Amino acid sequence: MDDCIFCKIAKGEMPCHKIAEDDDFIAFLDIKPFTVGHTMVIPKKHYRWTYDVPNFGEYWEFVKMVTQKINQGLKPFFVTYLTMGMQVNHAHVHIIPRYENDNLVNEFAPNLRLQLSNEELINISSKITL
Amino acid sequence: MDDCIFCKIAKGEMPCHKIAEDDDFIAFLDIKPFTVGHTMVIPKKHYRWTYDVPNFGEYWEFVKMVTQKINQGLKPFFVTYLTMGMQVNHAHVHIIPRYENDNLVNEFAPNLRLQLSNEELINISSKITL
Repeated sequence: MDDCIFCKIAKGEMPCHKIAEDDDFIAFLDIKPFTVGHTMVIPKKHYRWTYDVPNFGEYWEFVKMVTQKINQGLKPFFVTYLTMGMQVNHAHVHIIPRYENDNLVNEFAPNLRLQLSNEELINISSKITL
Repeated sequence: MDDCIFCKIAKGEMPCHKIAEDDDFIAFLDIKPFTVGHTMVIPKKHYRWTYDVPNFGEYWEFVKMVTQKINQGLKPFFVTYLTMGMQVNHAHVHIIPRYENDNLVNEFAPNLRLQLSNEELINISSKITL
């Protein structure tokens, strides 16, 4: 899409701190990172959500390859994967290296957990497993 | 591992609200969900982190299949994927259906973004791309 910042990065029309690239995917540093090494991985073609990417398994194999580079180069304790998608409407995976005392939460939103009864869970489950 | 709650679920030794299962992976409802349909996807074998799973691409293809079930059954606006791993040391992917006004943040931790110079980013990038 013409006005998509990630399409421009994928086409080389905007600069980025590139970490890795193949025919379908590109990884680059987030310029406002949560932690050192925070990396975005995107498909070069424009898709709205990560799960719209047809070769989704390959997408994540590429994410894993980038993770291994991050683990080798930066030695984080572990990495967090996160997909949101409300800020840029081009599919992207955040790879967020996690370090001791990095101040990021270890729960996404601990205060927001719902208290559901077993019956409510069974009802939800039945809608998904159909 | 003997004391791992997710190993017990994978072996059927603990009950769960199962959404889907194949030879290698199982998906079940989080019993303290962030939103309706919050689902955990785990490998049946014990691995510490998701990226330790050898057939990682297949793992995510399974996640996508579960996502499609959630999208069909619950009609969320989109889904968020999240991996953390500090609470249970068995690899797991959170699938968190997102709804209008679900009160979850659309930024993971907006106040924690680092301000790094271009030189700092180049330095970080060089450690990863080596």
